[in-house]
Amino acid sequence: MKKAILLLSGGIDSATCGAIARQEGYGLYALSFRYGQRHAVELRAAKKVAGFLGVKEHRIMEIDLAAFGGSSLTSNLPVPKNRAKKVMRNAIPNTYVPARNTIFLALALGWAEVIDCCNIFIGVNAVDYSGYPDCRPVFIAAFQTMANLATKAAVEGRALTIHTPLSQLTKAQIIQKGRALGLDYGLTHSCYDPSAAGLACGACDSCRIRKIGFTEAGVTDPTRYITKKGK
Amino acid sequence: MKKAILLLSGGIDSATCGAIARQEGYGLYALSFRYGQRHAVELRAAKKVAGFLGVKEHRIMEIDLAAFGGSSLTSNLPVPKNRAKKVMRNAIPNTYVPARNTIFLALALGWAEVIDCCNIFIGVNAVDYSGYPDCRPVFIAAFQTMANLATKAAVEGRALTIHTPLSQLTKAQIIQKGRALGLDYGLTHSCYDPSAAGLACGACDSCRIRKIGFTEAGVTDPTRYITKKGK
Repeated sequence: MKKAILLLSGGIDSATCGAIARQEGYGLYALSFRYGQRHAVELRAAKKVAGFLGVKEHRIMEIDLAAFGGSSLTSNLPVPKNRAKKVMRNAIPNTYVPARNTIFLALALGWAEVIDCCNIFIGVNAVDYSGYPDCRPVFIAAFQTMANLATKAAVEGRALTIHTPLSQLTKAQIIQKGRALGLDYGLTHSCYDPSAAGLACGACDSCRIRKIGFTEAGVTDPTRYITKKGK
Repeated sequence: MKKAILLLSGGIDSATCGAIARQEGYGLYALSFRYGQRHAVELRAAKKVAGFLGVKEHRIMEIDLAAFGGSSLTSNLPVPKNRAKKVMRNAIPNTYVPARNTIFLALALGWAEVIDCCNIFIGVNAVDYSGYPDCRPVFIAAFQTMANLATKAAVEGRALTIHTPLSQLTKAQIIQKGRALGLDYGLTHSCYDPSAAGLACGACDSCRIRKIGFTEAGVTDPTRYITKKGK
C-alpha cells in the first residue's frame, strides 16, 4: 500500500484532504503539531479525525513556536473578529504564523524520508483562505523543488510529491467533497479563539469562513458555538 | 545594526561562520537545537561560542527528531568509525539526519521574520564534508527561493538571504580563517559519539575531518580526545 504523510490540524481542510488521500488508496501517517497555538483544542479534533480516517499512525509533535511569537495564534495579540469577507482579503491578518507551513512541511519531509514515503498531503487552499503566503501554489511548488534537493531519498531517485487537492476549491466545494466521502464535520475544529470548553467563537476569520462555507454548501453546520446564534 | 540569525551547532563550521558574520557587522541571534542528538554535549560548546561571539541572543529549541529516528545521531544505530577520507566520500553515511537542515532553516526563517531579520548564516560546507545533500549550494539556493515565497515579509518586499561563507572552503581553510578572526577552537565540539564526560572519540567521520583539518592547517588541535593519542 502506498504511503502518505497527512498534515492534520483537525480543521475542515486537513480532514477533507485526508479523506481524499484515503480514497486514492494511500495508507496515511498523520502528523499534527502542538506548537503553542491558543486553539490547541484542535488536537482533540485531529485525534478524532485520525480515528475516523483509520490512519496507520498519528503523531503529535511538540514545537514551541510561541517562543518566537509574532502571531495572535501564538501570543496575546487579539484575534480579529467579525471581519467582512472582502476585508479578510485585503491584507495578511495577524493570525498568520511566521513560516508555519514551511516548518510543518519540513518536519513532514523528515518523517517521510524515515518511513520511505514519497507523498505528503496538505490541505492548503488558495480560494477561501486568509491570504497566508504559505498556502499559495507557488510556495508549495517551490517547497517541493527544494525538498527534492534536500534528502538522501531524493538524491537516490525517490522523488517527493506534495499533494494539495483542495488548492483551487471554495470552502463550500471542500465541504461538499468531504460529505460525499462520508466525512462528519462534527469531528473537526476550526475556531482560532475557542472557549475553555472548546466551543467556537463564531466570529474569528476561521469561524466566519467555515460558517459561510456550510451555508454556501447547503449543509447543516454541526459546529458548537459559544452562543446559540453563534455570535 | 543589521541583524542575522546564526545556526549554531557548536562545531568548527558554525563557530567560524558566526565569526565571519560578526566581522561583517551583523548583530547575531544564535539558534541551536536539542533535537535528540547523541552528542547533545555540543550545546555546551554552542553556549561557549555564543558567549565568545557576543551574540544578542541565543536560543536553544527543543525538537524531537529522535522520535523519527532514521540516523545514527538520533537512534541506537552505530556511528561509523575509522573510515578513510575517500571512503567517507563514497556514500551518504548513516549520520545523515533526514531533512535536518531543512528543518533548522525553516525554524530560523520563522524566528527571522518575527525579529524583522533578512539574513541567515549557516556554516554548510561542500568540500570537506560527509556528502549530506542538504549542505550543497543547490539545496541552499532552492531553500532561499522557497523562503522568499513563504513569508509575509517576503510578500511585502523584505527578501531573505541565506549566507554560506564556508561553502567552498576546505576544513583547513576554515580553521585558518577562524584563527585569523581570533576564534578559539577549544570552545567547539565536533564529535558525533563523545564519552559521557564530553571527550571526543577521535574516530568518527566528524572527528577525523576535524583532525585532518587541523593538521593541514598547521594549527595545534585543541580537542580533548578520549585517549592521549586520540585513537
